[in-house]
Amino acid sequence: MKSFVQYESDCHFPIQNLPYGIFSTKANSQKRVGVAIGDLVLDLALMEKEGLLNSNHFSKSSLNSFMAAGRNSWSTSRKEIQNLLLDTTATLRDNADLRKHALVAISDVTMHLPAEIGDYTDFYSSRQHATNVGTMFRDPDNALLPNWLHIPVGYHGRSSSVVISGTPIHRPNGQTVPGDSETPVFGPCKLMDFELEMGYFVGPGNEFGKPVSIEDANEHLFGLVLVNDWSARDIQKWEYVPLGPFLAKNLGTSISPWVVPMAALEEFRIANPEQSPAPLPYLKSSEKWTYDIQLEVALTTPDLQKPAVISHSNFKYMYWNMAQQLTHHTITGCNLQPGDLLASGTISGETPGSYGSMLELSWKGTKPVELPNGEQRKFLKDGDTVIMTGWAQGDGYRIGFGETTGELLPALNL
Amino acid sequence: MKSFVQYESDCHFPIQNLPYGIFSTKANSQKRVGVAIGDLVLDLALMEKEGLLNSNHFSKSSLNSFMAAGRNSWSTSRKEIQNLLLDTTATLRDNADLRKHALVAISDVTMHLPAEIGDYTDFYSSRQHATNVGTMFRDPDNALLPNWLHIPVGYHGRSSSVVISGTPIHRPNGQTVPGDSETPVFGPCKLMDFELEMGYFVGPGNEFGKPVSIEDANEHLFGLVLVNDWSARDIQKWEYVPLGPFLAKNLGTSISPWVVPMAALEEFRIANPEQSPAPLPYLKSSEKWTYDIQLEVALTTPDLQKPAVISHSNFKYMYWNMAQQLTHHTITGCNLQPGDLLASGTISGETPGSYGSMLELSWKGTKPVELPNGEQRKFLKDGDTVIMTGWAQGDGYRIGFGETTGELLPALNL
Repeated sequence: MKSFVQYESDCHFPIQNLPYGIFSTKANSQKRVGVAIGDLVLDLALMEKEGLLNSNHFSKSSLNSFMAAGRNSWSTSRKEIQNLLLDTTATLRDNADLRKHALVAISDVTMHLPAEIGDYTDFYSSRQHATNVGTMFRDPDNALLPNWLHIPVGYHGRSSSVVISGTPIHRPNGQTVPGDSETPVFGPCKLMDFELEMGYFVGPGNEFGKPVSIEDANEHLFGLVLVNDWSARDIQKWEYVPLGPFLAKNLGTSISPWVVPMAALEEFRIANPEQSPAPLPYLKSSEKWTYDIQLEVALTTPDLQKPAVISHSNFKYMYWNMAQQLTHHTITGCNLQPGDLLASGTISGETPGSYGSMLELSWKGTKPVELPNGEQRKFLKDGDTVIMTGWAQGDGYRIGFGETTGELLPALNL
Repeated sequence: MKSFVQYESDCHFPIQNLPYGIFSTKANSQKRVGVAIGDLVLDLALMEKEGLLNSNHFSKSSLNSFMAAGRNSWSTSRKEIQNLLLDTTATLRDNADLRKHALVAISDVTMHLPAEIGDYTDFYSSRQHATNVGTMFRDPDNALLPNWLHIPVGYHGRSSSVVISGTPIHRPNGQTVPGDSETPVFGPCKLMDFELEMGYFVGPGNEFGKPVSIEDANEHLFGLVLVNDWSARDIQKWEYVPLGPFLAKNLGTSISPWVVPMAALEEFRIANPEQSPAPLPYLKSSEKWTYDIQLEVALTTPDLQKPAVISHSNFKYMYWNMAQQLTHHTITGCNLQPGDLLASGTISGETPGSYGSMLELSWKGTKPVELPNGEQRKFLKDGDTVIMTGWAQGDGYRIGFGETTGELLPALNL
């Protein structure tokens, strides 16, 4: 499949991808839906207006309406959009004036949150990550808690503070307990961290009180983004027992702007990891729900402008998959809604270079991460920018996720 | 202060109260804002349309726009509405035709969620409740966890499953671990419970990254409702370590439909409980943030139609108050938004008859609660209806909250 739009083979946005995002331009500040293709954005609102798409979702300021429309609509729209961009389709290819308005340089657009996120849930589904955390903070011989192999453990996050890639994050102030003291002090977080995650948007929701069976999970999955779940480790440590992380996480969660549809990832499904003990029947599925998506975390610092990759991970390092997470989420009757965001939890592979957080990469600060210019990092410093990227490698093309980036600003002086 | 609308002195909705809610009627299915007065609802959308109110918030299907407008707008509207209902104001009193359309019997309206709740947060701020839980499940000599006296401990709840009073709740299915086993089974929850709470709606929000100081907290508090935080204790026990309660709570949270504005509760502010150790400076306030609001929980069962009161509590039994909770919530930079719901956590007084959950009232099932017809309850049974109510007792009138009710239906056969 080829587009009349030109791009290199390592481009994140070939015609096989067509991720959806919400954008605006200087010329038109209206938020609307576009797809990324090469270095361009195709304005789907304009395509709809011109009668070139049989849909009514793309002049909206969020993807929620399209997400709610369901798989048949997604499939129809994807075919129509793909067709418009094919090198064999004349409509746009041979209409310079329409192309000029419809295809905007990606460098000229402002990206916005792709959805109004009603609720945000974060799981904890990488076995290596859970094992690393358990080893560092609890008992290396019993690193996994008793429930971990039975439940896709997760918790409710904060949806209001999910922000778009590029949004700077202030180092938070809060309560921390120095050393072995039991008396907290107030001040800037000292152990500021990122978490490399992927997140998926819910398409059609389910009715309150009516769980989604694992066989039906794919009807509810719209697409994927990169997620940086910023974490204040010292604040987290003091606050999280017994009700879980709260202020250590709701200071901001960054997501990439382009939502890669499930359809674009179909060929990257691989066998699931073996689960032993076997999960309870409601969590069992014979489908391949594991995806081979390469992930990287890079840092820049005030003294290091060229991003230094500090972690190579992969979405395939998940023990609990998206279908299990989604089904589990609804099993007691919780209603999911279009635009809800469910995230994987930190994705860590088996080797230290594939860990998805500074906490793990520096092993609680005991093994500082070396940067190419000689700088070291145990946790993040003010002025550091965290850059996450990911792609699935196809035959001659990449299904890419672009980036989620965020700079850590100094703490406010409260 | 007297209204031309007639009601008894124990009525929940005198002219001193004027709580806001979202209602519709058979004749007009449009959701809109009303205030309760006596046994009637005043249609504020109609009042606006008739030019009798200087506002533009009340024909909307949620209170979010009014909540966002802030204290000056709230004060202006309250005065205008109160004035329209005074027995000395002729506008409505002497216009039978207008009254007929503007004042609807409360028994004839359908109530809806008062706000689009972006995020729901639940705290854990009653000392007796935290002590009871710690005593039962951990260590009676160290019932409170080390952070509890320093932090208004809280967690993110699920906003999509906050439902309006009257919505039935299915007993959830889920994973529980029988006895001392470490292997979970799947099936209906056996330890179904309620939690007596109060919740407050956020008015104007704060900017992402900019905490709210405790001095400014009152600018962000719109009003209060009753909250039943349904809880599946056996599911909770198995899932909650280390990330907190998840499916045990997101099966449904019921709220009362009428939001009592802070202004109606002004005279019921009383001295705060002493806090020792002293909270960190960002949580210190010299204002009275404790409210004397009597609370009751009653049950009906298939064999007991007359509600039997099983708990007498009071909102004054809070250790951490609303201003502390709200300020703490934002201290790491989390942005609150108009319509967010923050709840108190279970409110338990010092005596067993004032405990706010079956878990505490039956002391983990060891002291069954006796009902007037001889029935006993350790936890809730299918067909039980939980009725929560509350009011502040003024001189000759009550500022009431109405009720939040919900029937527990049998589990679905999954």
